[in-house]
Amino acid sequence: MKKLINEPGDVVDEMLDGMVAAYPDRLRRLDGNEVLVRSDAPVAGKVGIVSGGGSGHEPTHAGYIGDGMLDGAAAGEIFTSPTADQLDAMIQACDAGEGVLCVVKNYEGDVMNFDTAGEMAGMEDVDVEQVVVNDDVAVEDSLYTSGRRGVCGTILVHKVAGAKAAEGADLAEVKRVAEKVIDNVGTMGMALTSCVTPEKGEPTFDLGEDEIELGIGIHGEPGTERTDVMSADEITDHLTQNVLDDLDLDAGQEVVTIVNGMGGTPLSELFVVNRRLQQLMHDHGLETYDAWVGDYMTSLDMMGCSITVCAVDDELKDLLDAPADTPALKV
Amino acid sequence: MKKLINEPGDVVDEMLDGMVAAYPDRLRRLDGNEVLVRSDAPVAGKVGIVSGGGSGHEPTHAGYIGDGMLDGAAAGEIFTSPTADQLDAMIQACDAGEGVLCVVKNYEGDVMNFDTAGEMAGMEDVDVEQVVVNDDVAVEDSLYTSGRRGVCGTILVHKVAGAKAAEGADLAEVKRVAEKVIDNVGTMGMALTSCVTPEKGEPTFDLGEDEIELGIGIHGEPGTERTDVMSADEITDHLTQNVLDDLDLDAGQEVVTIVNGMGGTPLSELFVVNRRLQQLMHDHGLETYDAWVGDYMTSLDMMGCSITVCAVDDELKDLLDAPADTPALKV
Repeated sequence: MKKLINEPGDVVDEMLDGMVAAYPDRLRRLDGNEVLVRSDAPVAGKVGIVSGGGSGHEPTHAGYIGDGMLDGAAAGEIFTSPTADQLDAMIQACDAGEGVLCVVKNYEGDVMNFDTAGEMAGMEDVDVEQVVVNDDVAVEDSLYTSGRRGVCGTILVHKVAGAKAAEGADLAEVKRVAEKVIDNVGTMGMALTSCVTPEKGEPTFDLGEDEIELGIGIHGEPGTERTDVMSADEITDHLTQNVLDDLDLDAGQEVVTIVNGMGGTPLSELFVVNRRLQQLMHDHGLETYDAWVGDYMTSLDMMGCSITVCAVDDELKDLLDAPADTPALKV
Repeated sequence: MKKLINEPGDVVDEMLDGMVAAYPDRLRRLDGNEVLVRSDAPVAGKVGIVSGGGSGHEPTHAGYIGDGMLDGAAAGEIFTSPTADQLDAMIQACDAGEGVLCVVKNYEGDVMNFDTAGEMAGMEDVDVEQVVVNDDVAVEDSLYTSGRRGVCGTILVHKVAGAKAAEGADLAEVKRVAEKVIDNVGTMGMALTSCVTPEKGEPTFDLGEDEIELGIGIHGEPGTERTDVMSADEITDHLTQNVLDDLDLDAGQEVVTIVNGMGGTPLSELFVVNRRLQQLMHDHGLETYDAWVGDYMTSLDMMGCSITVCAVDDELKDLLDAPADTPALKV
């Protein structure tokens, strides 16, 4: 294994300190905890928006902390849920009396620990609501998941919920728009290579020199099929068709698309994928309102990509266009 | 080789189309040319700022096109200089009568073709000036370079020159601030793995399973030494010490730092490096004014990083803080 790390067990701790060192005016680490919050949290008069999950998906989630997006993000160990205690501390640190919305990716550990943390914070009189993102159309039930996995569509939920909260909307309204995104978004991913976790130091799964995996999860969970290497256009066609089959959109529908890199994929290749994706949107009579291309929800050093399509109405467009000022996303 | 591409010879063409498809309101491709310009180029009343070079370093350069940075970027084939004809077409497309500054990384092909293009555009009455960035402190003279190589410091030149041009400064003033950055910036990089070009399909250079290379160039040009795997802290210490030895700064000096990923490096690891880098800045009595962490100047799928330090005065701080609105950098 070759990685830019010190001790494998210190990666998350040192990464969080390195983030605060990069953005000392924006981010604050809760004492003795693997939680980052806005330096000015809790923000008076605003619903708090928090998220969290295993590390290894950077810039998810802490990269999205800031005006118009998240107030806090909890970092578990690599691919491991944060504890309920961590999440409870985060929720309480981000509550200014208007309540807190937890944006949870659908993995059993995350959902269970956010549930417990919500109850714990509730006993301290914090009004807590939760939404569970399950945008991965590839498979029902997976290695760590009942139902569908939560993946890159989560970033759109962060953006929309964060913008609504910044407007001063109440917790029920913020939850409503978050759920509107969840109801209208689908994603599917693929891998050219496995990721390598620092602790294990070797590939999480074996993939032959001429093999790729379609429908992969962001922790290397099994996908829908392994196949011979395909061209970028063939891969884009396959992923997009599966997402569109799931969403079942009418012609003329406006959409936001994401070509997301898995961490080890050059940006040039993501643009090659986006070229084909936008041709497909056109061919299906869909109107791309905005196209995002970059590393939003990664899987350490995995090479591969995911494609996300989200149907948007005027409300979602306005919220996606609203200002955001975070390390990883500025609007 | 596993990559998200179609035909290896089509990567640059399809990438550029994919960029325009992502940002159709911002970017325009010159007909029949591998050049992207601002959709509203030339911008009246403003010096044009252009750059270019071989592809494979994305988001460099086209990702920095937009308000407050570049007006145009020419994309050669992977790791190959754009032609003088391409560069001439770009310069002319970005001239609104106030002249054009070419920001050139110090590689022999780039310098020669920008020189020729400047003469060609000059014959069409375009006022053209050039600055050559040579921030890589690792080696004098390299595989494609007389003198030092131009690497990640180039992005700071784009930012500062672009901001000065946006203020309405004349060509001489824009060139002056660009040269101020060049005089005050140093960078050194390293690789954990080689990059793989689409045409060759195999590693550009061999690096053993337990070996890394210090002082590497962004095309895989030889560095200063190969060594056994080192920890992130040891690597950061080595790169930073070389940069600081070159810059020879006084205690109390304000600096902007960049931890730049080479394309295949997870963001989490770059933050681990930044943690140590900021400790070193503190230990040397330097004041970090701003710390950038991300993929700015890549080398396809290479795993590794570079560290840039730039001494800044009030003028450079103001220009770095000025608004910029580009796909890859927003301020």
